[in-house]
Amino acid sequence: MTDHAVPSVFVDRHIGARRDEDIKHMLNAVGYDSADALAATAVPDAIKQATPLSLGRALSETEVLVELRRLAGKNRPHVQMIGQGYYDTITPAVIRRNIVENPAWYTAYTPYQPEISQGRLEALLNFQTAVEDLTGLEIANASLLDEATAVMEAVLLMRRANKNKALAGVAGGGKTVLDADLFPQSIAIVTGRARALGFEVEVADLSQGLPEGPINGVVIQQPGASGRVADATALVAAAKERGAMVTIAADLLALTLIKSPGEQGADIAVGSAQRFGVPLFYGGPHAAFMAVHKGLERQLPGRLVGVSKDDAGRPAYRLALQTREQHIRREKATSNICTAQALLAIVASMYAVYHGPEGLKAIAERVHGHAHRLAAALESAGVEVAHRSFFDTVTARVPRRAASLVAAAEAKGINLRLVDADTVGISCDETTTADVVATLAGVFGAGPAGDASDQESGTAFGLEDAVHRTSLYLQHPVFHTHRSETQLMRYLRRLSDRDLALDRTMIPLGSCTMKLNAAVEMEAITWPEFAGIHPFAPDSQTEGWRELIADLEADLAAITGYDLVSIQPNAGSQGELAGLLAIRGYHHSRGEGQRDVCLIPASAHGTNAASAVLAGMKVVVVATAADGTIDHPDLEAKIEANAGRVAAIMITYPSTHGVYDADVREVCDAVHAAGGQVYIDGANMNALVGLAQPGKFGGDVSHLNLHKTFCIPHGGGGPGVGPVAARAHLAPYMPGDAAHWTGTTGDGAEDPALPVSASRFGSAGVLPISWAYVKLMGGAGLTEATKSALLAANYIAQRLDAHFPVLYTGERGLVAHECILDLRELTAKTGVTAEDVAKRLIDFGFHAPTLAFPVAGTLMVEPTESEDLGEIERFIEAMIAIRAEIDQVAHGDFAVADSPLRRAPHTAAAVASSAWDRPYTREQGAFPGGTPSQDKYFAPVGRIDGAAGDRNLVCACPPLEAFES
Amino acid sequence: MTDHAVPSVFVDRHIGARRDEDIKHMLNAVGYDSADALAATAVPDAIKQATPLSLGRALSETEVLVELRRLAGKNRPHVQMIGQGYYDTITPAVIRRNIVENPAWYTAYTPYQPEISQGRLEALLNFQTAVEDLTGLEIANASLLDEATAVMEAVLLMRRANKNKALAGVAGGGKTVLDADLFPQSIAIVTGRARALGFEVEVADLSQGLPEGPINGVVIQQPGASGRVADATALVAAAKERGAMVTIAADLLALTLIKSPGEQGADIAVGSAQRFGVPLFYGGPHAAFMAVHKGLERQLPGRLVGVSKDDAGRPAYRLALQTREQHIRREKATSNICTAQALLAIVASMYAVYHGPEGLKAIAERVHGHAHRLAAALESAGVEVAHRSFFDTVTARVPRRAASLVAAAEAKGINLRLVDADTVGISCDETTTADVVATLAGVFGAGPAGDASDQESGTAFGLEDAVHRTSLYLQHPVFHTHRSETQLMRYLRRLSDRDLALDRTMIPLGSCTMKLNAAVEMEAITWPEFAGIHPFAPDSQTEGWRELIADLEADLAAITGYDLVSIQPNAGSQGELAGLLAIRGYHHSRGEGQRDVCLIPASAHGTNAASAVLAGMKVVVVATAADGTIDHPDLEAKIEANAGRVAAIMITYPSTHGVYDADVREVCDAVHAAGGQVYIDGANMNALVGLAQPGKFGGDVSHLNLHKTFCIPHGGGGPGVGPVAARAHLAPYMPGDAAHWTGTTGDGAEDPALPVSASRFGSAGVLPISWAYVKLMGGAGLTEATKSALLAANYIAQRLDAHFPVLYTGERGLVAHECILDLRELTAKTGVTAEDVAKRLIDFGFHAPTLAFPVAGTLMVEPTESEDLGEIERFIEAMIAIRAEIDQVAHGDFAVADSPLRRAPHTAAAVASSAWDRPYTREQGAFPGGTPSQDKYFAPVGRIDGAAGDRNLVCACPPLEAFES
Repeated sequence: MTDHAVPSVFVDRHIGARRDEDIKHMLNAVGYDSADALAATAVPDAIKQATPLSLGRALSETEVLVELRRLAGKNRPHVQMIGQGYYDTITPAVIRRNIVENPAWYTAYTPYQPEISQGRLEALLNFQTAVEDLTGLEIANASLLDEATAVMEAVLLMRRANKNKALAGVAGGGKTVLDADLFPQSIAIVTGRARALGFEVEVADLSQGLPEGPINGVVIQQPGASGRVADATALVAAAKERGAMVTIAADLLALTLIKSPGEQGADIAVGSAQRFGVPLFYGGPHAAFMAVHKGLERQLPGRLVGVSKDDAGRPAYRLALQTREQHIRREKATSNICTAQALLAIVASMYAVYHGPEGLKAIAERVHGHAHRLAAALESAGVEVAHRSFFDTVTARVPRRAASLVAAAEAKGINLRLVDADTVGISCDETTTADVVATLAGVFGAGPAGDASDQESGTAFGLEDAVHRTSLYLQHPVFHTHRSETQLMRYLRRLSDRDLALDRTMIPLGSCTMKLNAAVEMEAITWPEFAGIHPFAPDSQTEGWRELIADLEADLAAITGYDLVSIQPNAGSQGELAGLLAIRGYHHSRGEGQRDVCLIPASAHGTNAASAVLAGMKVVVVATAADGTIDHPDLEAKIEANAGRVAAIMITYPSTHGVYDADVREVCDAVHAAGGQVYIDGANMNALVGLAQPGKFGGDVSHLNLHKTFCIPHGGGGPGVGPVAARAHLAPYMPGDAAHWTGTTGDGAEDPALPVSASRFGSAGVLPISWAYVKLMGGAGLTEATKSALLAANYIAQRLDAHFPVLYTGERGLVAHECILDLRELTAKTGVTAEDVAKRLIDFGFHAPTLAFPVAGTLMVEPTESEDLGEIERFIEAMIAIRAEIDQVAHGDFAVADSPLRRAPHTAAAVASSAWDRPYTREQGAFPGGTPSQDKYFAPVGRIDGAAGDRNLVCACPPLEAFES
Repeated sequence: MTDHAVPSVFVDRHIGARRDEDIKHMLNAVGYDSADALAATAVPDAIKQATPLSLGRALSETEVLVELRRLAGKNRPHVQMIGQGYYDTITPAVIRRNIVENPAWYTAYTPYQPEISQGRLEALLNFQTAVEDLTGLEIANASLLDEATAVMEAVLLMRRANKNKALAGVAGGGKTVLDADLFPQSIAIVTGRARALGFEVEVADLSQGLPEGPINGVVIQQPGASGRVADATALVAAAKERGAMVTIAADLLALTLIKSPGEQGADIAVGSAQRFGVPLFYGGPHAAFMAVHKGLERQLPGRLVGVSKDDAGRPAYRLALQTREQHIRREKATSNICTAQALLAIVASMYAVYHGPEGLKAIAERVHGHAHRLAAALESAGVEVAHRSFFDTVTARVPRRAASLVAAAEAKGINLRLVDADTVGISCDETTTADVVATLAGVFGAGPAGDASDQESGTAFGLEDAVHRTSLYLQHPVFHTHRSETQLMRYLRRLSDRDLALDRTMIPLGSCTMKLNAAVEMEAITWPEFAGIHPFAPDSQTEGWRELIADLEADLAAITGYDLVSIQPNAGSQGELAGLLAIRGYHHSRGEGQRDVCLIPASAHGTNAASAVLAGMKVVVVATAADGTIDHPDLEAKIEANAGRVAAIMITYPSTHGVYDADVREVCDAVHAAGGQVYIDGANMNALVGLAQPGKFGGDVSHLNLHKTFCIPHGGGGPGVGPVAARAHLAPYMPGDAAHWTGTTGDGAEDPALPVSASRFGSAGVLPISWAYVKLMGGAGLTEATKSALLAANYIAQRLDAHFPVLYTGERGLVAHECILDLRELTAKTGVTAEDVAKRLIDFGFHAPTLAFPVAGTLMVEPTESEDLGEIERFIEAMIAIRAEIDQVAHGDFAVADSPLRRAPHTAAAVASSAWDRPYTREQGAFPGGTPSQDKYFAPVGRIDGAAGDRNLVCACPPLEAFES
């Protein structure tokens, strides 16, 4: 490219306030001459980045698409029959267009504010209902990160929930037994994590019965990795007899034909919902699921959608049992899952809604039929077929011929699974055609397809009778009423219209960085050359993917100042875990395995503590000083009290208080001096990019949230990507590839590279988004973005401080990229709570700021660089108007219980009701800004009573009658 | 493919009512055992199709995408520098994703119901404002079909508006003069149509001054086809001096730098808005524009958005001056334009909104700079550059080398324009890079790009001073407030939320066939291999396109029973024109040029008459009998009265009354016997596909509306495609290629193949939609769709007849695919009008049926096959509830003026107003269905006073103050 190329103006499109007059207006209010001067003052000198960020010339949108097409062209989509947890599937175009490619869905936040999240909550409830029905268990969550980590979550659940007296007094509570026919990546994740957590795992061939000794829990895979499907009822019963709990890792599509885990007696079912319409995505993101028997729901990790009531008694959805969540339980947390795979769960749920039970069963039967004919053809060609009862996967025994057969199939454009030198796995899926089966028959030396077909009735293949499913599933009307594309399109529109996402309003969520997810960044992810690649495809077919990933990792390393980056962790929580496991590995390698204390400031996000616990560490809380910074005397004291045992400190920078602490280097030095490592949580990286580098000012390891700073949309609660970045000495402990991780290295030594995700590159499928963002912005553009975010946050803090005191500012009176508004005094005086303000903002058409984090009774506001001055002003004016309403309560104009604040949000039904009896006008309720807007958003439900729903837990789709008034 | 391929279930997705119980329920009500029996009864035996429609196996959605990718792979996108009215451009991703790929925009209907169309009306008003500003003329319309036909419309406008006394008494009103530097396709369209209409056209090199003789109007192109840009002020003045009117065909991007047509004295400006972000699309669809001086607005063809007020006095948009429209004026119509290019005009308008004046100017300067450097490089290489004043197009004089240079450039991936053996045209555009300029310099033998750049200051190239623009444009705030992607995304969402499109409700518009536009059908149109092809690219680069088009034409011929099809006409009106021109050509070829009478039934769509007039025919109206069929005695009388002069009859079948006339064959026979041809309007083809074929039951020629029967979305009023289908004897008269049509054939004979669109394949860009639809359905599926449409319409007729009498049914008591509900008696009794019912339906969340066509005082309902029983029931229930409200008026419960019917639609502001003083409850106003829905759609404005807006015509964006209350 030359100077005369189409100039990139993307930075002007990404940043909201770019007009000189707008910037001047904001700078005036904040009292600075330039955004540079503001940033130079806000960021402590001690940590300032020495040289400008250099990442090459910013590309234009056109150039980025050209580059992405070049990279896409270096991937080679094949017919994907490798299986092993990943199956090709057909994403209905109506779902791709109206969910995956529609900002109303993909820019939505996690549904913590249920009144403006009824659409996605309903979609996620449909997901739970589908999983519950298919698994035959009563309670399912709204997705987990991937199947292998879901297996791990199940193991942990069994370990904490199993109180069977048969295990009483057994050291460690009994071992965990994994069937050898589990997917290799599931075995790797569990055995690796067991090493950190110190419990025993035994991998056993359960077709030969259970191993000896006390067993805490058993995990069975159905169909097994080998494709084998056997009724596990007797095995489950035997395990229970021995005091064990049982998890079945199941395949949702297979469950339309085979007996459910619940019917086989399992306590827990896990698995992946990928093949319900979610592309292969080179390994992720995909929604995993977990379902449990009633009684275990309070132990269930992840989010759970439940049904409650709103203030008018209408059924309304919200996240249930949030007291289980890690942000509440912190170091007592039992899981660190935070971000889930909401968008993918929604896709899977709509796939079930669109096909319905009869459609899903037809697909399953077609898949099974192909596998059946394939097996018959192989046998007719003299190939030994390993199992006679299977669903979709045929395992062929081909002594010494496996590699050459796999290569022959690849030459025909078909990828098979090379199990070992003598074994080939072939998995059929929704896209399999008879032509493919015929081609494969040829590869294996069988006759033409017609022959195979003819064999059909004569063979003894197929699902064994014992596992045939007879129970019904997906009987709720939602799975029967959206069969035409028109119906589904309208259903999707209706649901998304109930919600507020970034396509309609600023989402000023402190710590969540809800910025623009540009359309051009999103384009490539659904291209077949990216979306259609199997994670275990040969490297020769994935050059484009790996070049893109290596490039992104290098850019992220350059941005953070670390030596290396792994994008494997598929959520921020997994990034934390990966970082802490690396620290753990490092200490062990130096013979300092006793270092198991993780220091965590009181203000930290709850996930930090949860991740530390799950990495096998003990959490020691460090107090926070009155100004919000780390309390140094307390830090010294805690270090001293844990001398020789300090493994790490986890600090968020800028702190969760939205401030650049000036003494972060001292904190890092103190911990290093004590032999500990420094983990810097990158959640607030949006305040650092281009200005300061955690890898340079004291961090040994960090994670980033690509779904915050690097523009992957939140998707209504996932997918996320949480890369881990580290200094060179931690390189050996970065995440390994679960599909090939065996616990030991080639020379028999312990392999310290514990994998944290099922697939090597985690949520690879969405990485083109962040890659494109970095390329479009370049180093200078990214730095501009950071400064713009600082300016916007300080402008809001300055404008609102008189109305809602800003709780913390740095030494020079500035905040970083967000600010905490303190409602506590107003609450004490008037009874109006921060939650009331959050709900009242809905009437103004806004999503609420972060509520009660990191300080109860406050709201944390983060505008990001993408909001323009007009939207920022609209927010400020709304907040000032709300303050005036609080003053009305203070003055006794109305009681708080009758105020427009407490009665918020106002539905159309409420303000159009003849029976209006409130002490304020309908107009004040509906149009608090003044002039009635023709673009008014009405919350679909009024204030939701969350506690009522928890008391009477309903986590499946309610009957339609519930909605009749 | 074999039997075991993934089965196509698309027919089940496309048709709404596919569940057995739903079909049975509907059949029960109608009184038939099967949809087959119903269809067999409804369709007269005389016309029934003899054999089932056979179009090959229906493909699955996956297979269709595979096929489309194969076809796409046979196109070869090049750097497109051919110009000639088509320039590459960058569609901002935010616009592509949120408009072109968003059903909220593309499934919308023409904004005839303004209350539910405020969003797209605002977008179109932005388009008008941009065109007005850039052309320097006061009134612009909301798009025309393409530039060449816009030139034709301008010529016609001049011919009817020019009352200059200098032309008094001149035979034919003076000739039309076209500058020889007009695009060849514009010259071809005008000269071809002049032949039919009988006026004189002279093509002259106006750089040499005006030709002799009386001149009605002059058309100048700026920049000319040669790229030349010269100030036309003196030429315009001279023409006006001679009594002529003047049209300038202008380039919107060039107008950011050069003096506007208005400033140069032109009366009219026309052109294409394509390069404002609309892909090349192999020639279309693109929005053309026309702007005129104040005083000519009532002569302006096409639709015009204006500003009026709603019932609360708020500014509100609607189509202005509809009395000009052809459906009102019929045979007195001055244009047959009906469908426009709304979606493309909206894209262009948002391109202007997003870039603003400074952004557009920067793009124009960049384009100009590249052209400038290229010219300098050519000259430095000794190549003669034809013009020194140009904007984007450089014409190189290369004696005898033109073909080889064009070939050399093509070998480098660049398409140039081969003007003639000695001349090459090179047009720069928004995508041009310095690399491309350097490559071209090399092709022409110049030094490296650096050299060319260095020449820059030394050359005498560039726009001549006289044409430099100094006047401002795009000063309205809308062109200054959506600069960030977030802002534009939200603006687009906000606008689309104001509207009701198919993604939210049934649009039961009789005669418009608003059916599913499936996402899979839409996917391919934005693929670069389809969208990025220049219409004049060499055939070797367009194999995929041409295969797809030929295939679609063949399928349409098979469906209609005709011998051949041309997809060139880019709207139904153009299809009619093409068909009538073919009939005219046929008669002339047989020495029967005196046949100029076109018989048209009184019930016909107004476009029919308008098209006949524009094909140079005289319209003779045939009366309609009481039962809605053609009045045979009157037909006989009209034929007799015009013995020897009958050119054609135009009939719609089934008739616009929604009924299969049993005697259509007799009508055809009578006209044939009189020596006339039969034109069957295919607007109602949705009632025929698979059941009867116009090409077999008497038609000589028909047009189809691919945007009705064949699933191209209406796009808020275009694009459309109106293929013309004919029997073999009309083949020589099918539309020719305007780019190469000269009026004579190789042997000097008159070329009878008059082109009707600027580009050979019309709106090629959207043809993959119809192609995919036909492939997905197959013959059996298409036939099923027709039967389903019949069942749905008859079900509605049956259910509603007791509440609103169905005006016409066929001999056996059945309607075809739509039904007319007669309000006239109720109106006479109660004062409640059909319009009141239409507006009240908005409160139920419905788009209105067709109002007052074909019979005033009625509503025509067409559910199509895509609506499911649930939605149909919701509509029926709404209509019954409305009937109950009419009865309330009848019973005196409230006066009609105060009734919820007349006060409809109800805005949120109205029902939430403290000042409610209506004689019905707020609930009845807002939630007429009963239970308040959380998915309530509120009209953004109340009932609009259209007449007030026409009295005080405002057709540009109103100032923001207008919206303050």
